[in-house]
This record gives sequence, C-alpha cells and structure tokens, in this order.
Amino acid sequence: MSKKNKPARVKARLPRGFVDRNAADLCAVNEMTAKISDVFERYGFDAIETPMFEYTDALGKFLPDADRPNEGVFSLTDDDDQWMSLRYDLTAPLARHVAENINEIHLPYRTYRAGYVFRNEKPGPGRFRQFMQMDADSVGAPGVQADAEMCMMLADVMEAVGIKRGDYVVRVNNRKVLDGVMEAIGLGGDENAGRRLTVLRAIDKLDRLGIDGVQQLLGKGRKDDSGDITKGAELNDEQIERLLANFQMKTQQNSMVNTIMKYHADEGELEGLTEEEVELLWHGAYAAGTMALLQGESEVDEIPGLRELVDIWTLIEAAGYNDGRIRIDPSCVRGLEYYTGPVYECELTFPVTNEKGEEVVFGSVAGGGRYDGLVERFTGQKVPATGFSIGVSRLMTALKNLDKLEQSKAVAPVLVTIMDHDRIGDYMLLTKKLRDGLNPRDENGDYLGPPIPVEMYQGNPKKFGNQLKYADRRGCPIAIIQGSDEFAAGEVQIKDLIEGARLAANIEDNETWRESRSAQVSVPAADMVATVKAMLKKEGAGN
Amino acid sequence: MSKKNKPARVKARLPRGFVDRNAADLCAVNEMTAKISDVFERYGFDAIETPMFEYTDALGKFLPDADRPNEGVFSLTDDDDQWMSLRYDLTAPLARHVAENINEIHLPYRTYRAGYVFRNEKPGPGRFRQFMQMDADSVGAPGVQADAEMCMMLADVMEAVGIKRGDYVVRVNNRKVLDGVMEAIGLGGDENAGRRLTVLRAIDKLDRLGIDGVQQLLGKGRKDDSGDITKGAELNDEQIERLLANFQMKTQQNSMVNTIMKYHADEGELEGLTEEEVELLWHGAYAAGTMALLQGESEVDEIPGLRELVDIWTLIEAAGYNDGRIRIDPSCVRGLEYYTGPVYECELTFPVTNEKGEEVVFGSVAGGGRYDGLVERFTGQKVPATGFSIGVSRLMTALKNLDKLEQSKAVAPVLVTIMDHDRIGDYMLLTKKLRDGLNPRDENGDYLGPPIPVEMYQGNPKKFGNQLKYADRRGCPIAIIQGSDEFAAGEVQIKDLIEGARLAANIEDNETWRESRSAQVSVPAADMVATVKAMLKKEGAGN
Repeated sequence: MSKKNKPARVKARLPRGFVDRNAADLCAVNEMTAKISDVFERYGFDAIETPMFEYTDALGKFLPDADRPNEGVFSLTDDDDQWMSLRYDLTAPLARHVAENINEIHLPYRTYRAGYVFRNEKPGPGRFRQFMQMDADSVGAPGVQADAEMCMMLADVMEAVGIKRGDYVVRVNNRKVLDGVMEAIGLGGDENAGRRLTVLRAIDKLDRLGIDGVQQLLGKGRKDDSGDITKGAELNDEQIERLLANFQMKTQQNSMVNTIMKYHADEGELEGLTEEEVELLWHGAYAAGTMALLQGESEVDEIPGLRELVDIWTLIEAAGYNDGRIRIDPSCVRGLEYYTGPVYECELTFPVTNEKGEEVVFGSVAGGGRYDGLVERFTGQKVPATGFSIGVSRLMTALKNLDKLEQSKAVAPVLVTIMDHDRIGDYMLLTKKLRDGLNPRDENGDYLGPPIPVEMYQGNPKKFGNQLKYADRRGCPIAIIQGSDEFAAGEVQIKDLIEGARLAANIEDNETWRESRSAQVSVPAADMVATVKAMLKKEGAGN
Repeated sequence: MSKKNKPARVKARLPRGFVDRNAADLCAVNEMTAKISDVFERYGFDAIETPMFEYTDALGKFLPDADRPNEGVFSLTDDDDQWMSLRYDLTAPLARHVAENINEIHLPYRTYRAGYVFRNEKPGPGRFRQFMQMDADSVGAPGVQADAEMCMMLADVMEAVGIKRGDYVVRVNNRKVLDGVMEAIGLGGDENAGRRLTVLRAIDKLDRLGIDGVQQLLGKGRKDDSGDITKGAELNDEQIERLLANFQMKTQQNSMVNTIMKYHADEGELEGLTEEEVELLWHGAYAAGTMALLQGESEVDEIPGLRELVDIWTLIEAAGYNDGRIRIDPSCVRGLEYYTGPVYECELTFPVTNEKGEEVVFGSVAGGGRYDGLVERFTGQKVPATGFSIGVSRLMTALKNLDKLEQSKAVAPVLVTIMDHDRIGDYMLLTKKLRDGLNPRDENGDYLGPPIPVEMYQGNPKKFGNQLKYADRRGCPIAIIQGSDEFAAGEVQIKDLIEGARLAANIEDNETWRESRSAQVSVPAADMVATVKAMLKKEGAGN
C-alpha cells in the first residue's frame, strides 16, 4: 500500500501527568478507600459528592501559586462566557455546596467526599495532574473539639489502612499563633497578606529543604536543583532570625517529646518529674519559643491561638491519643491560605530513600485545618468549619513502601476453551452453566459469595495453543476442554492449570508430561460444576 | 457596616448541567454500580481506569454533533499548546489505552470501566454535562460470539440491578445491513459518510419522534418544540420511502415476534407451524424487509452483516436468552459513528409519563456495538473489539420509577450530647468507648460488621435543645446524655429516640410525656455499650 493512501495515524499517548490504572492498582485503591470510608462512617460522616467543575470565582484562588492568575487550575469559558474550572481540592467545592444549600442543610454538617482533583502544574515523579483525595469535614462546628476529633480520626484512618502506631504522627499547630509571631515581626495587616502566605509556605517546607532552604525562601529567594528560582518573602535578617527562633528548637523539642512519650508508655516517672510537670514541659516547649519571640507576654491566654492548642491537647489526652499518635508541632503550618485556626497534618515517619539516594522520612500524606471564612465568602456570615484531606495516591505509595498493600488482584477466570468452532453455541451454554453453578444465588437472586469468574475464550479460536497460552498469561486456575470425542461421550475435560504448572516445573521430559495428563480429568458433563468447585477449593483459588 | 466596606460576595451556584449528590443518592448509585461490577467480574472482565483528560486528536470526533468542530466536548490547550479534552465516553480512551500498550496487553483483553464523562451540550431535564457511564469491552475478539456475550451480559446486568424479565429487552442489529440498505439507495462511498451518519441518527430517534419525525430528519430537516431546527439528510422522497420500508413493518414484526416468543414459552406449536418454521419466520421478518429493498439478492450470505445477525441469534438461542430478553430489531442503529458491525441496545419497556403527560416506554439505558476500527486509528492494524456502555444515571432514574431503589441510606449515628461544657474531654472519651464497643474488631484489627456510627455533638453545645433537634432531624436512633448528676453517680442516660417519637405520637399531653421519660433509661457507665446494643437491636437500627 502506498504511504499516500494510508489515513494519517494518531499517536496513542496521554498528556503528561495523567496515568492509566490497571486492575491490581484499582483493586488496591478501592480496598484502601473502603477502609477509610468505613472509619469516616463510624464517626458519623456521610458521603456526598460535588461535580468536577465549579465556576472559577466560586473556587477562589487558594493554591500556593495563586499569585499567577489562572495558573494551577484547569479553566475554560462556558458558552455564556463565564469562567469554569476543574476543582483543585474538595474543600472549596464543599464551601460552595454548603453556601448554596445553607437553608436546607442542618448544621453541624458532617460529610466525607472522595474524588479526583486537578492541578495544572508541572508533573514530576509521583506528581500527577489528576489525583484522588478523600476529605472529611465538620461544617458548623465552632469548638476545638471538632479539630481534636479530626486529628483522632486521622490517626484511626492510618491504623485502619495498616500503618502501625509509631510509623505515623499527626502534628497539630494553630495558624493564629504563627500569625501572632508574624505580626510581632511587622508582617501584620492586609497589605502583608501575600508575604505572610510566602512565609507560611516557606516554613511548610522545613522538613524538605532544611533550615537553610527556608532561610533563603524567607529572604531573597531560592534556586532549586533544576535552576528554577522561587521568589522569597524579602524579610530582613533580623525578621528571619526572630521567626526561625521558634523552629530551630524543633530538634531539641522533638527529643524532649520522645522522652515524654516514653514516659507515658512506661507509666513511670521521668527524672523525678511528676506527670503534670512533664505535661507542662511539653506544652511549655512550644509556648516558650513563642513567648520569647513575642517578648513580654507571658500568659497563655494572651497569645492568640495558644489556648486553643492547649485545649486541643487536653481533649487528645482525655481520649488517650497523647501516646505519640498526635503531637503539638510548631513547624506544622500548611500551605493553603484559607486556614484560620488549628491546622494539622499526618506525617509518616518511617524512612524511605529519595531520588538522590538520601534516607528521608516518608512525609505528609494528609492535612487540614479550620477554615471559618470559606463559606462566608458566599453568605457573608461566618460558618465555622474544620476538616482534612488525604492524598490517596501518596498513601498508596506509602503502603507499597511498607509492603502493606494487600496483594489482592482481580481473580483470574475459569476459561472455557473452544475446540470445535462449529459448536460455539454449546460452549456458550456450557460457560453459562458453569458460571451459574460456581456462583450460586439465594432465593432473592442475590449472589451468595464473591465472584468466581468464568469466561469463554473470545480471541480467534482457530489455534488451540493460543487459548492455553492466554489462560497461562492471565493466570487462569482451570481450563475446560470439550472436543468432538467428549461431546459424543457427554463428557468434559477439566485441566487444573495450577497443578499443571507445578508438575511441569518438576518434569523434565515434556513428552512424558503431556501424555500423563495428570493435571487433567475427564468427567461426565453433569459433574463439571462439582469437579471444578473441588479443584478450586484444593488450589485455594475459589472461595 | 457600610455597604462599601463589605467584601464583594461570591454567588454560590454551580454551572448549568452539573449537580451535587447527597448521601442517599450516592449510596444508591454505589450499590447499583457494585451489582453491575459484580456481573462483569463473574464474566471475567477486570476493572481498569483511564484519566479524565485525553489529547483531543486521540479522542476523535465521534459525537453526534461532530460536524461542529470542538462542540460537544470540553477542550483546552495545554502549556505546550496541544489541545486536551475531557473524555466524552469510555470507549475512545480505551482504544487509546490499548493502542498505547499494545505490546504489553494480552488479547483478548476483557475490561470494564466506571467513571464520569463530560458533554459540553445544552443541559436539560435529566440531561447533565457530567454523568457516569459503566462500560465493558472485549478487545481482540473477532467473532460474533463476543457480541452475543455482550448482549447476554447486558440482560444479566438488568436483572442483577432489579429490573425484571419482560421489563427490558436487548435489541440487536448490524450496521452492515443498514450500510447495505444505504448503499442501495445511493448513499455509498466516502463522500456520503456525513449523510449516512445523519440517516443513522434519524433512525435512532424512531421511538422518540415516530415515523413522521424521522421522515422530516431524512428530508429537509425538523423543527422541535423549542423552535430549534435540526438539519436533515436531504434525501429525496423515493430514497426516504425505500429506507423506511424497512422500519414501517416494525410494529407488524413486533407482534409476530411476540407470538413467536409466546410459542417458545408454551413449548407448543403455533398455528400448525413447526419450531423451525417459526424460527425462519422470525429471522425472515427482518430479512424480508431488507431483501425487498435490496431487490434481487435472496441469499442471507449475500447481504453483508445478515449472516452475523443470524449467527448471533443462534448463539443467543443456544444459551437460552431467546425468551424475549434479546431480540433482533432493525430499528436499533445507535448514533455513534465508530460502529462497524453488530450494534445492541438495552431498552426498558415499562411505561412512564413524559413531560407532556404522555405515556411512553422508558427507553434506552445502555448500548454498544462492534468497533473494529478504533484501535486501528492509532496502530494502523485492525483490532476487533466490541462492548457497551451503561448510562448509570438513566438506569438509576429507571429504578426510581420502578420503585426498585433500595431505600438504603447512610445509617444515622448514635449521638453523644454535651450537657456540661467543661467536660468535653470526658464526652470525647465516652464517644470513643461507645464507638469501639459498638464496632468490635477481630484479632487482625478488622471490623466485624457494618458501621454503627457514633458521634459527639459538634455544633455549639450551649443550647441543649438544639442538640436533640439535630438528633431528630438527622434521624439518630439514640442519644446519650450525661449531666453532673450522672457524672457523680457514674451513670449515663440513654434516650431511645425512635421509641420516643412513637410515644410522642400517641401522647397528647406533652408535659406528661416529658415527665414519664419512658423512652429513657439510666444505666451504670459500664453497661452503656450493652444497653445501646440491645436498644439498637430492638429498633432494628443496628446490625
């Protein structure tokens, strides 16, 4: 055929940052999200869903790169020239949903949502432009008990998906404390909102960039390994020093926290201190740093947000989550602009090796906080709310790293092969009988157990060998064979492919094996279902 | 506050054609899609997923309004100026996925996919711009046995979701037959591709518009009730007459089909005809119309596609689905351009009342067909494939109409109320104990049963009455109350809200009821879990 006559071929490829998911992957994600939903439901949160699209103004610009308008989100104009965007998180749409239905919704409104969100960003390793989040939120919940509940539920979620105690920590802080610190160094007022955000985002990177990197981001800016320059907050040296005083003690504080945790675990005494004194020390570690900075203020209640933090800790203690599952941590700030009070983040603390071959902690898989102003954007009235978001793909990667991913894959089908091409109708009926027989139903027509798939070979049936090759690649446990001899005798051949593979591995002489047919039985058609059932049971492939 | 100082409020609203989904809705959809997945898995189809975005050229333009470029789909340019679109169905992305991974994928490749698709169309009642589809496809399946299997699986799906036999019919046809008819009236050749598509789409509307409406669409065009004009295929009167000869006999044929079906059911004879003769009649009804049109050709094999149709019917008979579940129907054409052979559609036949108050059949909820050329667009080689798509929302609406939607909603939580604001930590611990107690786990830490939600009231706890109002609106079965008296005595009050509502309905004197507290018991804190369990069991609210 001449090249000219061929229709132009389209290249089969996906846009960067988007991926297909195979059966094993999908199965694992579904199992994990089911476990998370389960925890949410036991806490009294109901599943709801909002669509992928929102009006751009309804979403607002709360993404870290909101200073570049329309960057970060996928947007297009509707036929009435209004801008629409694909949601970049599940919180902004929830605020719109609550505001739109404020007269019908009964507060407190406790919901969870699972779904894809979209970021129009540069994709990278493990960084996708479509990814799944799972969120839980209490809207109309003014007290810190709602924030404390979120932290505890986050801890429960980690254990439900298989991350063991000690391999994760929920870190809690309060934006108000940090806002106080920033005000003290002259970053108060509306005119500094942008710089405050830059500061928050710099501090948010403490774990990843270290104190030097953060120092650069607070000052003139930072050039990363690829040569890209991130603009800094343009603070002067004194401001940077005062700000970082609060965080440089983090290492020191963490060792203290560990000692305290050990103390709790042993239920003994710590170097002569009483339990109350240890608690004081624990809160004090944070308070002291803040207070040194604010100079002169010495009462907890005088520092905005610190009382809330102490109250959260008290509730966490009361419920018994103060054993290292949840910690107060001044370096937890969260990068999103809309938080107004407590913020929290779940960090996985086990070590992994990064692209540079360095050993680092796995890091954050979930985070959230209080956003009392998001619904107000629409209604003009404050509707206090708090909630978090789980990065489903990140958490999946973590489970893979921990080898905690259940090796569940779709069960491979029993394959009905086609020996005699003129009898496809007979094979079709046989397939149906086998499927019905292996998947019994109750009197309501509902299946009694998980699926045992049965399929008739649908490729070109001319070459019989290809059918067995397909069964092999697919991992089919059993193949059904019925040729003209078997039809005449009213029998079927049932081939145990698992046993067959085992035998093949042990028998050197291929011919001997083929003749022996030891993994293959011929039974009357009426006994087919029972024989297959017994074989599946023996191989542990059925249910 | 002066109007000037208020920040501009954003209007909380969704773009037209997009909707939020509540807990009951989501729960019902999830149950229905789980049942559908279950059928697919028992047939040996594995779940896979592709992302929402594809390159625009990879999707192709197969939508009914493809004559208007870029209409019908949501598109935007990527940062490298390539056009990306949100998928409008789940078939085009599957073709791209198969072509991209053709060297790794083992054919036949049997997958199912569930997910949202997007159409940039004028929204209307029950017509959304984001809606869910569930697809199953066999790729690398050249024989009509794959098409027959699809039709049978479609029938099984309908019964699995609760639509009873007789309330649905899977209609089968073959594009090739229709193509032959069109060629016979002078619509062959590449230059008539657009008109052939217009003809297909006109015929596809036979059920909705009647023969007159279709006649207009085949000729000059048709003005709908809103005044919108749809362009016609510009056929002349003779062409229209010859084309419609094939479909005008539909009513007559259907009554024959019904007689034949009754014959099959009775397993008796029909007006002196043998079973073979009835079969001939049955196929003949279709063949006769076609043959009359094609003039002169009289052998089944000479009419392209008719042999395939007869073969499909033979397989359907062999598997026993010829009892009215599946029918050959010449008016089944499907509106999408990419079908190359058998096409099939599942129609719900029970009557509903349309917006005009007329009684009509519910209509199509799923459809599909063979598309041997879709992968070829990318690879240059034919990869035979067949599959169908279920309109999940349409099917949900149908189940609502049939009152078959299981009234499953999220189970309402047991509510722990807050009487003494200073003891929130105690209530939090109590909530946790109750949640753990009602949701026991096995030795692996896995929950033993479905969730019994327990929540602590998270609204403003100052007004106790609001807490009980919340419990009432939410449908909580039980409220836990612990005031200072109960704390002192180590007891909790357990209020049976279901029993309470029942009593309230019977007692006229509100005061008497309140004092009687007959739906409320006080128990030692240690007995709380057992008492709540017993109460839930009595009310049938737990598990």
